[in-house]
Order: sequence, then C-alpha cells, then structure tokens
Amino acid sequence: MAAYDYDLFVIGGGSGGVRAARVAAALGKRVGIAEEYRFGGTCVIRGCVPKKLFVYASQFPEHFEDAAGYGWTVPEATFDWKKLIANKDREIARLEAIYKKNVEGAGAEAFQSRARLLDRHTVRLEADGRTISADQILIATGGRPAAHPALPGNELCITSNEAFHLAELPKAIAIEGGGYIAVEFANIFHGLGVDTTLVYRGTEILGRFDMDIRKALHETMEKKGISILCRSLVESVSRRPDGRLDVAVGDGRTLSVDQMMLAIGRVPNTESLGLEAAGVETTQQGAITVDAYSRSSVDNIWAVGDVTDRVQLTPVAIHEAMCFVETAFKGNPTRPDHEIIATAVFSQPEIGTVGLSEDEAAKRFEALEIYRASFRPMRHTLSGREEKMLLKLVVDGASRKVLGAHILGPDAGEMAQLLGIPLKAGLTKDDFDRTMAVHPTAAEELVTMYKPSYLVRNGERVD
Amino acid sequence: MAAYDYDLFVIGGGSGGVRAARVAAALGKRVGIAEEYRFGGTCVIRGCVPKKLFVYASQFPEHFEDAAGYGWTVPEATFDWKKLIANKDREIARLEAIYKKNVEGAGAEAFQSRARLLDRHTVRLEADGRTISADQILIATGGRPAAHPALPGNELCITSNEAFHLAELPKAIAIEGGGYIAVEFANIFHGLGVDTTLVYRGTEILGRFDMDIRKALHETMEKKGISILCRSLVESVSRRPDGRLDVAVGDGRTLSVDQMMLAIGRVPNTESLGLEAAGVETTQQGAITVDAYSRSSVDNIWAVGDVTDRVQLTPVAIHEAMCFVETAFKGNPTRPDHEIIATAVFSQPEIGTVGLSEDEAAKRFEALEIYRASFRPMRHTLSGREEKMLLKLVVDGASRKVLGAHILGPDAGEMAQLLGIPLKAGLTKDDFDRTMAVHPTAAEELVTMYKPSYLVRNGERVD
Repeated sequence: MAAYDYDLFVIGGGSGGVRAARVAAALGKRVGIAEEYRFGGTCVIRGCVPKKLFVYASQFPEHFEDAAGYGWTVPEATFDWKKLIANKDREIARLEAIYKKNVEGAGAEAFQSRARLLDRHTVRLEADGRTISADQILIATGGRPAAHPALPGNELCITSNEAFHLAELPKAIAIEGGGYIAVEFANIFHGLGVDTTLVYRGTEILGRFDMDIRKALHETMEKKGISILCRSLVESVSRRPDGRLDVAVGDGRTLSVDQMMLAIGRVPNTESLGLEAAGVETTQQGAITVDAYSRSSVDNIWAVGDVTDRVQLTPVAIHEAMCFVETAFKGNPTRPDHEIIATAVFSQPEIGTVGLSEDEAAKRFEALEIYRASFRPMRHTLSGREEKMLLKLVVDGASRKVLGAHILGPDAGEMAQLLGIPLKAGLTKDDFDRTMAVHPTAAEELVTMYKPSYLVRNGERVD
Repeated sequence: MAAYDYDLFVIGGGSGGVRAARVAAALGKRVGIAEEYRFGGTCVIRGCVPKKLFVYASQFPEHFEDAAGYGWTVPEATFDWKKLIANKDREIARLEAIYKKNVEGAGAEAFQSRARLLDRHTVRLEADGRTISADQILIATGGRPAAHPALPGNELCITSNEAFHLAELPKAIAIEGGGYIAVEFANIFHGLGVDTTLVYRGTEILGRFDMDIRKALHETMEKKGISILCRSLVESVSRRPDGRLDVAVGDGRTLSVDQMMLAIGRVPNTESLGLEAAGVETTQQGAITVDAYSRSSVDNIWAVGDVTDRVQLTPVAIHEAMCFVETAFKGNPTRPDHEIIATAVFSQPEIGTVGLSEDEAAKRFEALEIYRASFRPMRHTLSGREEKMLLKLVVDGASRKVLGAHILGPDAGEMAQLLGIPLKAGLTKDDFDRTMAVHPTAAEELVTMYKPSYLVRNGERVD
C-alpha cells in the first residue's frame, strides 16, 4: 500500500466525503480529501442548513400575528434581508470551519482544489497541478440544480444556489418546480412578504408523497396567499425595460416578477472529473453507476451521496460513507440500507413522512386500513389561524404492520424522525394502540386512532 | 337489571367519567352521569388545556426576541391579561359544550349536580334531592390542589385553580412546590413578565424525572431569570398594608409579592361522597382503593382516574375508563396497563420522557449504556439564545433494550409521545441505530448516537 501517497483519496468535501475521510483517517488510514468550493457541501453551504434558517426567518410574521389571540399587541415589524443573509453567512462559515477542522483533526489532509482523475489510482489537483496517487478513491462530488437550456431567457433565472445570496429580497418571485425545494422556497419567500407564484407542469405538487398530504399542503399554501399553477410550464423569461422579468406561463398569461427561480431537479456533478480516463461508468443521467456496496465499475473507485443519484439526502450520503469504510477498510462488506427512510419537507406547515403512501401501499397490499385525523392544532384555537393538521397511518390489514405514516403540521419533521424507529422495526398498529397518549400533544392522535377511517381492498377504497 | 334506573351511574364528568359514560352508552347501556361543576373535568377546565394555552401565550416574548437574529425589528409588544383570560374562557366553554354534547349524543343522561352515595346502588343528586338507583356505579371525581392549613396565612394563597382566573396579572409571584404544576406555572408567569420565585423544600425540582434533565431545566430557568429556592419552605404569608404579600421563606428572608401560589400536590376528591354509607374503602391519603381492574371494595362500585391516585394523567384516566367498560360491560376483564407511560412537562424548555431515569435503571440493571447529547437547537444559532437541548437514552447493556428516553428542549412532548411506541414495544438500541436520520431535526440525535457517553456498572458510573 505504501506504493501510493494515500490509502484513500476523497473527491468532494460534503456530507458523504467528509464522513468517509474522517472515519477512515480515525482508523489510521492515510487520507486526503479535495474540495473545490467550501467544505460542508450542499447540505451545509447551500442546502438543508441555510434553508432551515430561512424557514425560521420566514415564520416570524405568523408568530407576530398569532400573538394577538393570546392577548399580545405587536406593532408592525420590519425585515432586513441583508441582515438575515449576513447572520446566515456567519453561521455557515462557522459550520464550514468545523467541518474542515473535524477532517483535519481526524488526521486527514484537506486540499482546497478541484480534483480530476488521471487514471484509476491518480488524481490531479487543478489548483496547483500536483498529482497524487491513492489506493482507493471515493467520489462524493454531489449534485447541483439542473439548468434549463431549452427555456428562452434561462440565463435570467436563478436557482436555489443564488437564492441564498440575493442582494435584494424580490417583491415578487416565480418559482418553477413542484419538488420539495420549489415548495420550501415558495413558503420561505411568501413568509418574508414576497408575492410568490409556483409554476409546476405536474398535476399536483410533491409527487411520491401521500396524495392526502399533497392536496392538504397545496390548499393551505393557497389559503396563505401563495399562487400555485399546476399543469403549467414556464415558456419564456424576458427582461423588461424597467428591469423586472416577464414570465410567460402559457394561455397567454404573463407574470411580472423580480426574480424567476428554477427548481426543476438536480443533476450529479460528474463533468470534467476524468471519469473516462479512469474507466468509471455513468448512467444516462450522468450519475456514477455503483453496485450495492457503492463500488463503481472500477474496483478501487467508489461513490456515495448525490453523485450516485440513489436517494438524495444528507443522512443517506453519510450512511453510505460509513458503509463504504466498513466495506473498503474494515473487511466488513456492508450494503447501505435504503429501505424505509423517514424524511421531512420544511414547507409551512411541515411535512413528515416515513414508509409507503396510501397509493403505493394499495399497489402492493391486498387489504389496507387507513387511519386519518384532521384537526386544528391547539395553538391555533386562540390564534384563530385556519390551518389544519393532518395525521395518517397506512396499515396492512393482514399483518397489522404500519406501512406508512404521514404528517402535515407543526413539528412534522421531528415526528417523522421518531416514527422512523417503529416503522423500520416493523411494528404493528397494535403496538401503536398499546402506547399511552401524552396529553395535550398533536402526536397523541397517532396512538389513539382505534378505528380505521376507511379500508382499501385491492386498490379500491371501501367505506 | 331493569330493577335499577340505570345500568351505570357515573359520578364525575371529567376525562375518565365522560369516556366511560360515552362508551357504555354506545353499547346500549342505560347510563347517567353527574357533574357538580363543569363537564370536562380538571384537564379541560383547569388543567392541561388552559395550562397549555397559557404556555403558548407566555412564549411569544421569546419569539419576539428571537426574531432579531433573523433580520426582524419588532417594536415593543404589550400584553393584555384580561384578553387572554377571556379568549381562554371562550375556548374552554366551547370544549365543555363538546364534552357534554358527546355524552348526551352517545345516549347518556347528564345531570348538573353533586352526587352522593346513599348505599351501594343508590345515589342522591344534591341539586334537587332526587334519588337514583344503578346496577353499577363508577366514581371518577378526580382531585384538587392540596390545601396547606398548617401555613400561617394560607387563606391568602391561591392554587392553580385560581391562577386560571386572576383578575390582574401579578407583578411578582411566589410559587411553592417543585412538581410539574409549580414548574409549569413558574415558566408561564415568568414568560408573561412576572417576577417569579419558586420555593421548594426538596433538593431539586421535578423528583422522579431523570436527574440530568432536572438539573438542566433548573439551570435554564435560572438563566431566564426565574429565582429558584430549593431546600426552602414557605413559613408564613401575611398581607401588608399596601395589599401586597410578605412571604417568609426561612433564614429571615422575606419575598414581597402580589400573589402566593401553592402547588404542593393534589388530593383525591372523596369527601362527602357517601363512601362510608356504601362501604367503599379509601387509602390513608383518601384515595379510593381499587383492584387491578379498578373495582373498589364494593363489587358493583368502581373508580378510575385521579380519585384512585394511581397515575394522575388524563390519558391514564381514559384508558382506565375504557378497561372498566370492557370489564364491567363486555365480559372481557381488562386490567389497565400502567407500565412505560410517556409524559411531558410543559416547562420552557419542555420535558418529554418515557421509561426509566438513569438512577432508577441503575437500581434494577447491572450494566447500563448512557447516550447523551447536548447542543444548541438550530433555531438558536441565529437567535443567539443561550439555551441547550438535552437528549438522553438509557440502555440495558445486556439486552440492548432502550429503557428510558429523556428530552429537554423544543417539542420534547411530541417526541416523547412517539418514543413511547418503540419503548413500549421493547425495541433495542440497534433498532434505533438502524433508523435513518431526518436532517436537520433535533430528534435525529436520538438515532445517531453510536457510542455511549458513559457506562454504569452496578450503579456506579464508569467512563
């Protein structure tokens, strides 16, 4: 092994790459890791973390409004976008430093450079042209927002990357997309007072989530004042003389906005990486092809995280990284487990979900019991806010196993995390029923729904 | 059975009594239920529900403060206590009406009257002197705040009952007690701007909870500005000429306050119920003695809820009521299950807990693994609030079973509810580890603590 400079060289300093570098270095391996932009990757630098900080910022106006029903008189508040950005940037820089420090603290060597494969064991650092050899190589370069070259005026559009650094808060924005990034940003901008329109070509936002939750969120967002155009496409974007943008959305309709954001998907970062030189294969979509152990078509080159386009989530990338270290360095071949992954959408209200949607379960199971509760969260009895919480369990009628749990409402993300435990363990509705309620909470509804709201037989709802 | 006016007569229209009446009536039984005060009982009228509404009210000032770090400038807000009380009262009246309507809708007959047993089958309604006979009788009269007759000046003190209806918000308050009611009200009054002192004879607030959580909450409350005097007793209360109260708390110290609240425990409502006439036995503390099926010493008289002083929680009373109906009316003898009950304290920050504390587990298990995470919640990275979240798992080293889960921080109550499911089902730390994280949440720490913080062997901590 000493024939190589490193036992492991990691390309990409995001969640997956940093974890692999740290854990391998802690085992005593000689580890190098290269990052061209900022350590922390999408999650820390321009994804989960700054997004959630924006969500918090955008929720305050509702807190101010809700206070009235509780006896508070709150004079009108003002918002300073530049201050939010500055405070967010300071926090992100702090986290970035921690990531880098953790990598180096574990004994790995961090390089601030783009890296390119020259062959299956050699990497060139583009910053200074140095070449480095490594026994094992891990590609963890992540992904980026998809561009939309076919759209006339696409060069006038921003993506989530730019949304984190806008010089001014727009007065009006249009967002194209129906996935969680589009939905989260629509809620953020609306909460901050921006006139917001979501444009989505599909029939309903948030495909793959449970349809009840999708519809209920759609309805709630519209009630708040977000305009949602489904079955619509942005046809062109053009700059007007006054600097604003005209966004043509079909049927002759034009939106006049200050910013147009594309959130139409994400693509893997595999260009100019030297994959061909090393013989690493990619899918048609440009993702690195890996086997069940995250090994690429070249047996000493591996890939984890968004660049493999399996499940694009931070905890999954970290899990894949840890399995990779087990497999490559601990003689313990370990497949990452991609079954029953709880997730959250930080829309307003939040979504938390784990397991199968009703529609998905109906395709796979003959008999389902659906338990469903919809109610006004207690906080809103006095705030007067017309916003309902929705809780839903999808249960296999034969085994009584809880196949899916879906929540729309405050703290849904925290709830989904903890529902992940019983669902992953295959617990049944009876296990839920045996659990004593905690009163007054919203989650208590999940253990006190004793009778199904309806049944599904062979894919058909029967009441 | 037709020899009696009713198949079941319930005394007390709180959570347990109403549930039993409804469920038995829905089975076709002839049911009567008497309530002397207001349907809904402690929980709805002067407990869980109005308490949580007060908690929401008292949290707004922190929202206003936290907003600054997110770019908001919020001019000073003002608070109108009378408006809160009026809005709360309206909501409670709405819930009370629903409770009464549900009872009557199920076919039970509701009486607005105190009821007294004349013998084991006869009840006298004190409102109009009518006597009623019943085959089975359920006592569900609940409890009330304990008085403190030995305290000089006790007649000047309020309890939680009065706290829900104070004409004015006090400028300063002292609260005696260290249980959850004392702690919750201390946080409520402090949050509303009241100068608050908690006086408790014990060594640390919230006995029986995990010591880490107790200490961390104590510290956080003091940082907020609540004064906590442990190992202290209120020795006397006296009215000053200016109308305020002097509260002597030992060592010659006197607190000057507007209200003095006693929260030193609760006692069962068993006086003047005619228990002697019917032959129903009580404990030394005045609670009705019941067997494992909630049956009293008289075989057609039963009791559920706080009046039995088993576990004083709304969901437990409801569960006992449902088991009672199974046992008495469905030929299905069912013992209420009092094991592994998740609970919350709506302190600020909240506590959520299920299962054994570390100290309790250390007495029963030879080897423990303790997993502990303490961090600043993400919201407070920008708010700047110096408040830490604490998450803790107590695991049996031999079986790997998770014996206890303890949380201090935002949404801890919701989390405890859902942790109740895996703990009740006896899941292991490995089941937690197999669960994918949801990022960014606080609860993800509960499934990503891979190494114990420390071990406990034969009751001793070993690092």
